[in-house]
Amino acid sequence: MKNKVKKNLLSLAAVSTIALGTFAGANMPISSAEAEAKANVDNGKAKNVIFLIPDGFSSAYATNYRWFKGEESILDSMLVGMHRTYSENSEVTDSAAAGTAFATGVKTNNGMISTSPDGKELKTILETVKEEGKATGLVATSTITHATPAVFASHVASRANEADIAPQLIKNDVDVILGGGKKYFSETLLNQAIDNGYQFISDKDGLRKAEKSNKVIGLFSEDAMAPELDRDETNQPSLKEMTKSALEVLNKDKDGFFLMVEGSQIDWAGHDHDAAWAMKDSEAFEQAVEEAVKFAKKDRNTLVVVAGDHDTGGMSVGGYGQYDANVEVLRNVTATGDFMVSKFDLTRSNIKEVVKQYTNLELTDVEIQKIKTSSKSDIAINEVISERALVGWTSSQHTGVDIPLYAFGPGSELFRGLHENTAIPGLMANAMKIKFSPTTK
Amino acid sequence: MKNKVKKNLLSLAAVSTIALGTFAGANMPISSAEAEAKANVDNGKAKNVIFLIPDGFSSAYATNYRWFKGEESILDSMLVGMHRTYSENSEVTDSAAAGTAFATGVKTNNGMISTSPDGKELKTILETVKEEGKATGLVATSTITHATPAVFASHVASRANEADIAPQLIKNDVDVILGGGKKYFSETLLNQAIDNGYQFISDKDGLRKAEKSNKVIGLFSEDAMAPELDRDETNQPSLKEMTKSALEVLNKDKDGFFLMVEGSQIDWAGHDHDAAWAMKDSEAFEQAVEEAVKFAKKDRNTLVVVAGDHDTGGMSVGGYGQYDANVEVLRNVTATGDFMVSKFDLTRSNIKEVVKQYTNLELTDVEIQKIKTSSKSDIAINEVISERALVGWTSSQHTGVDIPLYAFGPGSELFRGLHENTAIPGLMANAMKIKFSPTTK
Repeated sequence: MKNKVKKNLLSLAAVSTIALGTFAGANMPISSAEAEAKANVDNGKAKNVIFLIPDGFSSAYATNYRWFKGEESILDSMLVGMHRTYSENSEVTDSAAAGTAFATGVKTNNGMISTSPDGKELKTILETVKEEGKATGLVATSTITHATPAVFASHVASRANEADIAPQLIKNDVDVILGGGKKYFSETLLNQAIDNGYQFISDKDGLRKAEKSNKVIGLFSEDAMAPELDRDETNQPSLKEMTKSALEVLNKDKDGFFLMVEGSQIDWAGHDHDAAWAMKDSEAFEQAVEEAVKFAKKDRNTLVVVAGDHDTGGMSVGGYGQYDANVEVLRNVTATGDFMVSKFDLTRSNIKEVVKQYTNLELTDVEIQKIKTSSKSDIAINEVISERALVGWTSSQHTGVDIPLYAFGPGSELFRGLHENTAIPGLMANAMKIKFSPTTK
Repeated sequence: MKNKVKKNLLSLAAVSTIALGTFAGANMPISSAEAEAKANVDNGKAKNVIFLIPDGFSSAYATNYRWFKGEESILDSMLVGMHRTYSENSEVTDSAAAGTAFATGVKTNNGMISTSPDGKELKTILETVKEEGKATGLVATSTITHATPAVFASHVASRANEADIAPQLIKNDVDVILGGGKKYFSETLLNQAIDNGYQFISDKDGLRKAEKSNKVIGLFSEDAMAPELDRDETNQPSLKEMTKSALEVLNKDKDGFFLMVEGSQIDWAGHDHDAAWAMKDSEAFEQAVEEAVKFAKKDRNTLVVVAGDHDTGGMSVGGYGQYDANVEVLRNVTATGDFMVSKFDLTRSNIKEVVKQYTNLELTDVEIQKIKTSSKSDIAINEVISERALVGWTSSQHTGVDIPLYAFGPGSELFRGLHENTAIPGLMANAMKIKFSPTTK
């Protein structure tokens, strides 16, 4: 136990300096975002909904991220409730079943994309909103055909069929499609999209110019986009930049819009036990939420909802039998474990130097040996870093803990308390005062 | 992945059977407890506060407990927010610093009992309420001088000084004192207590009779009371029974009361990775919460607040690289790991039979060997059971994740959102419309 500086946190100073005075703010929630949101509620229904999903982000990620950042995140001011994540066939969901619950209000089996356990297509909130004349958008840092974005505008029995998902996104006429996964869109399909009025872009410059369009498909990489830690900022836009551009395009629709934004790779970082990647992608996600809330504050008719779909990795804050956490160690990490392994020479003689360069950590001989001999060297690096940061893990897969639910703007009060994940699309519809109920197509 | 029966849970049936009808309740929070509470709020201030603390209980415990129970717990209907648990000198608190935050509104160093880091005594919410003429009570399944109960009515530099805490509880004239720890109360001290009007009791029969008194000290064991799994029901009362009796005694005070009830051993189970003990003590705790809410519903002037002080063990729901959880396995466990070890013969030849008897699990030879050769056989048993139940752990100590906050009754809306743990006594005081601010004595 050591005396830590908790800069910008609400920790009271040593109490000897506390006179008998009252603490005006001490009993207030951490920020007044809910109060501001309440003011908006009085203006009536939500014309627009922005639904942001940090894939794999549980309370442990929220707490660790706050320490990583050194102060409260915008999410801290938006906490309204929690939700249950289990799927139809397991206590521990995957992103396909969790996304299907968010999109359709129905629990399905792991692996299925807006399809019922017995194979029927389930109507999504995006499809419902579209029928109301609103614009729609999907933004992600994975392939845009990956499970979480896919569930809102496609229906397939298995999430692996990304090539079957791509044409459905175009056929469903989603107005803004931004992310990775160009390899799943054939030239024929992209030409079809262009014929149907889409502007097609593939880099950051194009994204800025496309803000003048009404329909945009932006595919910024063949496969997934880069982790935020490894991103080439000149070519690939950030999640915040994609969110901002999506809002510019969608806000032209006088009937309003529904936009889903996914911080896709927080989950992948969790699977890899890459705590620095998880924190850096959480930061990129928070910046997208800030962009959404900035829009909502100005617009006053926009509901912002944020909900992770499940926990990944069983992350803990501290661990390893110690009463401590050292998340600040992660601030010095400038690459993913994956990237560091790509810098190893053939005989792996430079592990110490590479890890020092990208983490500022001095490895012990035992740690070097462990990384050198591991069949999964990236995970071995990540586990060394996690132990230094005192970030614990219980699994290489997801876990089933309840997940925090955040909201801002008109209708945010509907999300208070504990909910099933299947309740979320209905609550968003209620806020928009449109009808939605779980149904097959 | 297997198809699991989720009896009594809100999982929708296979969607093929869902017609186009609407789902009246689908978008509502899991229960209407908050709505009921709201009705109470309109009646005005909280005359009484019951503060129940499940030591070590985080979201993962809440989720696992729900699967263990097979349906929602009363806590699920009371979720209003979350709180931050870090102490003055660490991101990961112990129960002394966490309790001090709950009791005094001040962050202190780990190990300290309602004392500031520089050694000054901090005024507690219990002492403040007492000055308002209300009755006060402390109930726990640990020694009643253990950190969490101690912080409300004593001040010592180190939680280890339980013998120094005992006389302070009597001197502070806490009206109801129920729990373990007789060894810390000398005969002189108990005689003093009796002279000061306390009725002294030491078994379950005595507890029932003592309900007619105005001041009771009940010490039901020399050291801590028994884990719920191992409890002799004829001698030791349950946490629910202690809560019920405490309410009977305290409710005689026309000015109202403040009662703290701790489910002390959920934390100890977490330290031992004893998932069955954790679930069984969570069940005993839930029954105490049900008793408190039953009282509050009838009384209509009582605020019930429930908050774990921190996570213990970094528990996860699922783990071990699997998309699954098997918490139902724990329903067959009828003893703690500690108790099972006490049934081993000298040569440890009967491990297989003992574990079978108390868990209904067939151990493999590898598991038997692991338990046999372990220097901590109880934990070795518990880890085998945890792996069968797919309950993961990252630490033998606490972790620092944000913790759910539950409330019912007048003032419950004050607890919405994310709070510092130090905000909680002030919020309870606000609900009672009495003044409280962090201060030295």
